[in-house]
Amino acid sequence: MDFTSDNAAGAAPEILAALSRVNAGTEASYGNDAVTVGLVRRFSEVFEREVAVYPVVTGTAANALALAALTPPHGAVMCHELAHVHVDECGAPEMFSGGAKLVPLSGASARIEPAALEAALAALPAGVVHHVQPAALTLTQSTELGAVYTPDEIRALVEIARGRGLRVHMDGARFANALATLGLSPAEATWKAGIDIMSFGATKNGALAAEAVIVFDPALARDLAFRRKRAGHLLSKMRFVSAQLEAYLEDGLWLRLAAHANAMTGRLAAGLAALPDTTLHVEPQANEIFVRLQTNAIARLRKGGARFHPWPMPGDDAQARTVRLVTSFQSQQSEIDAFLTLAAG
Amino acid sequence: MDFTSDNAAGAAPEILAALSRVNAGTEASYGNDAVTVGLVRRFSEVFEREVAVYPVVTGTAANALALAALTPPHGAVMCHELAHVHVDECGAPEMFSGGAKLVPLSGASARIEPAALEAALAALPAGVVHHVQPAALTLTQSTELGAVYTPDEIRALVEIARGRGLRVHMDGARFANALATLGLSPAEATWKAGIDIMSFGATKNGALAAEAVIVFDPALARDLAFRRKRAGHLLSKMRFVSAQLEAYLEDGLWLRLAAHANAMTGRLAAGLAALPDTTLHVEPQANEIFVRLQTNAIARLRKGGARFHPWPMPGDDAQARTVRLVTSFQSQQSEIDAFLTLAAG
Amino acid sequence: MDFTSDNAAGAAPEILAALSRVNAGTEASYGNDAVTVGLVRRFSEVFEREVAVYPVVTGTAANALALAALTPPHGAVMCHELAHVHVDECGAPEMFSGGAKLVPLSGASARIEPAALEAALAALPAGVVHHVQPAALTLTQSTELGAVYTPDEIRALVEIARGRGLRVHMDGARFANALATLGLSPAEATWKAGIDIMSFGATKNGALAAEAVIVFDPALARDLAFRRKRAGHLLSKMRFVSAQLEAYLEDGLWLRLAAHANAMTGRLAAGLAALPDTTLHVEPQANEIFVRLQTNAIARLRKGGARFHPWPMPGDDAQARTVRLVTSFQSQQSEIDAFLTLAAG
Amino acid sequence: MDFTSDNAAGAAPEILAALSRVNAGTEASYGNDAVTVGLVRRFSEVFEREVAVYPVVTGTAANALALAALTPPHGAVMCHELAHVHVDECGAPEMFSGGAKLVPLSGASARIEPAALEAALAALPAGVVHHVQPAALTLTQSTELGAVYTPDEIRALVEIARGRGLRVHMDGARFANALATLGLSPAEATWKAGIDIMSFGATKNGALAAEAVIVFDPALARDLAFRRKRAGHLLSKMRFVSAQLEAYLEDGLWLRLAAHANAMTGRLAAGLAALPDTTLHVEPQANEIFVRLQTNAIARLRKGGARFHPWPMPGDDAQARTVRLVTSFQSQQSEIDAFLTLAAG
Repeated sequence: MDFTSDNAAGAAPEILAALSRVNAGTEASYGNDAVTVGLVRRFSEVFEREVAVYPVVTGTAANALALAALTPPHGAVMCHELAHVHVDECGAPEMFSGGAKLVPLSGASARIEPAALEAALAALPAGVVHHVQPAALTLTQSTELGAVYTPDEIRALVEIARGRGLRVHMDGARFANALATLGLSPAEATWKAGIDIMSFGATKNGALAAEAVIVFDPALARDLAFRRKRAGHLLSKMRFVSAQLEAYLEDGLWLRLAAHANAMTGRLAAGLAALPDTTLHVEPQANEIFVRLQTNAIARLRKGGARFHPWPMPGDDAQARTVRLVTSFQSQQSEIDAFLTLAAG
Repeated sequence: MDFTSDNAAGAAPEILAALSRVNAGTEASYGNDAVTVGLVRRFSEVFEREVAVYPVVTGTAANALALAALTPPHGAVMCHELAHVHVDECGAPEMFSGGAKLVPLSGASARIEPAALEAALAALPAGVVHHVQPAALTLTQSTELGAVYTPDEIRALVEIARGRGLRVHMDGARFANALATLGLSPAEATWKAGIDIMSFGATKNGALAAEAVIVFDPALARDLAFRRKRAGHLLSKMRFVSAQLEAYLEDGLWLRLAAHANAMTGRLAAGLAALPDTTLHVEPQANEIFVRLQTNAIARLRKGGARFHPWPMPGDDAQARTVRLVTSFQSQQSEIDAFLTLAAG
Repeated sequence: MDFTSDNAAGAAPEILAALSRVNAGTEASYGNDAVTVGLVRRFSEVFEREVAVYPVVTGTAANALALAALTPPHGAVMCHELAHVHVDECGAPEMFSGGAKLVPLSGASARIEPAALEAALAALPAGVVHHVQPAALTLTQSTELGAVYTPDEIRALVEIARGRGLRVHMDGARFANALATLGLSPAEATWKAGIDIMSFGATKNGALAAEAVIVFDPALARDLAFRRKRAGHLLSKMRFVSAQLEAYLEDGLWLRLAAHANAMTGRLAAGLAALPDTTLHVEPQANEIFVRLQTNAIARLRKGGARFHPWPMPGDDAQARTVRLVTSFQSQQSEIDAFLTLAAG
Repeated sequence: MDFTSDNAAGAAPEILAALSRVNAGTEASYGNDAVTVGLVRRFSEVFEREVAVYPVVTGTAANALALAALTPPHGAVMCHELAHVHVDECGAPEMFSGGAKLVPLSGASARIEPAALEAALAALPAGVVHHVQPAALTLTQSTELGAVYTPDEIRALVEIARGRGLRVHMDGARFANALATLGLSPAEATWKAGIDIMSFGATKNGALAAEAVIVFDPALARDLAFRRKRAGHLLSKMRFVSAQLEAYLEDGLWLRLAAHANAMTGRLAAGLAALPDTTLHVEPQANEIFVRLQTNAIARLRKGGARFHPWPMPGDDAQARTVRLVTSFQSQQSEIDAFLTLAAG
């Protein structure tokens, strides 16, 4: 009953097996290997257009590299106030961009509110030398609170952003979970909705350590190879990262794994909603639940061996506190049911 | 017959197996897992003192993080003119340090010449605000030309460096190869000779992607956790990097692998030295050979399927060119012998 | 009738004259001149303790240098959401600090609310590697809305800041105006209230281009000489900046100039308050007024030749809009009276 | 008899007077004033084409801003090994560019040797991700050793640079001195010879603190306004810098001042050359002399009140040491003659 995070899970067997499969013999290093070359083709098929692909080992690296490709040092990156890039990466976007500023925006369920974006852009008028200049918008899909943007919601934000000349990044640390919910093609969910560049996550959904910056606009890709090397993120034995991503995409494994994690969250959320005195803050659309539980239920759960993180929210008090529950590709139905039994008391 | 690089090799079976061994169940993420905690103890035993350990996935990351811990943005890092940090990392130390300057020094066999270090320090007097201020010295062990520093040679450089208040870093991308040659304890080869911090390499010697910043002086370690996270080098499923390092250190695997690679280089070098019209530029002391071969021998080797990189050196001409030959833990005696047969013509 | 800004004014005659006075002959360059050396003594007298002094030519430079001395790249600088460093310096603190994050805090009259500081600090817990680490607090005195902190208000914020190990910076672009209002000694208004380092402004109050970073804690000063040089802010003919500051401090000129500017604001504010349908948003305590005027009064003023900037505030509408009015050492009573006559209609 | 530096001099009376002339009344701030607007026109006339002009107060700022406009963080700036940007600016180009690398090149008289440029470019092949990518070439005119490039010498370097896609910067801290020697138009000496951007110096030649980045290629200018602000180099009362430059250009003052300084150097050099046992290292073509003098002559000069800096050069010994002698617009013929008399003994 470990619901602390999807990155507490190990690796999917198919992905672990891929490492052994590519291990034999010698290979060209630094991404010039056959596995990595093949991976670019695979991603281009998946996204139904030619894309540039930069595998890395963390979501923070993917995000920071992607944002640095979009913003000059005097630029501003518009993001949700809960965005991982703003709150949980210890300033990585600032480091990689040479000191750009992240502008936090409000919005329910960690979806950026279009009006908030418009207001923030208006406060940073173009060409006024005293202010940092808006250069990029970043969206998280699924969001930091487990919700999912529809393509129309994305398009509405993209339209505002493009009206000011911004490029748009998607933090897809949990992109598979969002896609499994949306039921759209990867293309529809990204570049067809206006995304220029994305961080494509696999680690939280079954890889050991594999993410990729996917660039839909080739003009943005030019410098990324140098930026990645310079940041220490070009692996010499790159085949071992590319092989994880290849296995992840093979035969739809990624979507199966995500669908399972989502289903586990769905079962857990349904069970919690049926309990008295619990509040789901956000409708769970991916693999995360933010729920306020009675403190005695929390105590009971911890005593029973359930693991999860507290997640303080306004409205919490001595009687009831919010916690985050995350399911993964590894989560078992029996764990969900055991948790619900404990929660019910 | 692939002698292009030791990172063209795959992973040692023992290290690959370790990934499966730590895969079961959930684990605390971001380095709070039991494997990583155990790894710190292991490294402390290996180095016979308490050390701080920061696993990462590339040597460039390890070097850039370590140097950034030693130098302010207005500092200078003294290094050999062939140093990987200066020539082959696309400016990573500059990025991580906020723009410090690398000062290239001369020296045979890619060992820094003490007189060159003294002269360079004299040219950057302390407290003169116009000049960047020497803050760190970095040595590569084994060197970029396959030589090995003795502890006395290191101590001589350390003494000069400390006289000006510099801290000393060792780039140990091939530290195991150097140690296998020196026959010293890890402690004798590093902190007992005056090293403050090192990049401990494993990738070139059998890991998939595993290096570690090892900090001998705890005062230097304070900020490294933040620097690593901020650079996108704190892996969420850290156990998969730590497990590689654990397996690498287990029962002396690392030294056995390195001794094999060195022995292969020794056999190859001996064979080449016996051929007419070949010049070994540097006495091979680790797992790299820099040798000038007749161009018709080079053509014959390539035709026969041997792979290696050209490595232009002063004195090369139309008749004879220098190439680099690198052996690894995977190299086979049969490959060496086949290569020598082809070279002999 | 130019109330656009105090930096629209020229230079005070005493300060302009000082440039000619130090022009004769040759002098040591880069701040080793007698004028600059004397200036350090003068500032030490003014602040009743030994201080380090780094003259520069802009407030942005002074602020960015001072903050960079307080925060590592992975640090956070707590500031008011209207702070000049956050809003009006195009990311200079981010550039100089290597990418630290500014955390905007709320508070009436552009004074930081202690509870807002506490909440923001609590959201960035010490030692959690995912979050930037609070390193500095910066206060603006007088504030961006023309109010003045009392020493007790400062001490309350300092106490919270120090409780988390932060150092405290004062942006004193209009420090003289604040001091003229407070009636305190410079020492009481700064280091005796807990300020570690300040940007001491003179440009807005009669200098051509002269500010200084004043360091009350010598331990913070060590690297500033290098940081200033590296940022291109060490002037070769430094005597021409130092002479401005010397003249500024001579015989209390700075406080006389500021008292005049404040008196002009007082007269203007009193006149405006007596008019119907005007709203002073903040009680003017220095040399700035933020006032909502009827739009027909605004039109009348502009037609009559008055110059000032619009300053949109919540509550503005088609009938009434907020403008900013700034007086300077040059402002004339006749201008004030003419403005009030026009405003009255 | 102060020959330490041309920045030990004060300001030319015409330039000092200009400050008073623009002081009256209020003016738009941050460079939107009439003086600055007029200055752009003036510079466009001087250079016979439309140029963008960014006044700043130090040569270090001008150089660092200009180079940052030419190179990405992973870029390399090719420069002479004695270049001020490399040796004397405490890493400012590294700071402003986000960590680009300066590549020092050899060449007599501090002129870059074309073969050295070609070799350095060949060592950093385009597109190889391990190496920083050459992005800019910077030349100093007059050079750090007081020599002057001819337009043909510049063109030869420009041709090599452009062949690799580099842009070319001129550090014109002593541009007026070079021009006075060359007898060319400013256009011929710069953009007509292939210069894309320059640092136009005035401080060493009679201004208090005034330099300008002049951009010949408008495409390069786009971001400079933000870069300057962000670096704290946009002065609020900009008219006081622009007025210095305006007066400097007025009626050819700049060239008259430089011609005088050069003539003083010429007289001094001729006198020194006539003395026994003195060696002029470089033919003085501007306002600097690098001369080896007998140590007893040096002692005699110092005793007689002459001031100058030692400038150690290879070949110096106990009998004879090299010193640098710099003349300025203020230097007097009587000082020269007194110096020569003392030197002659």
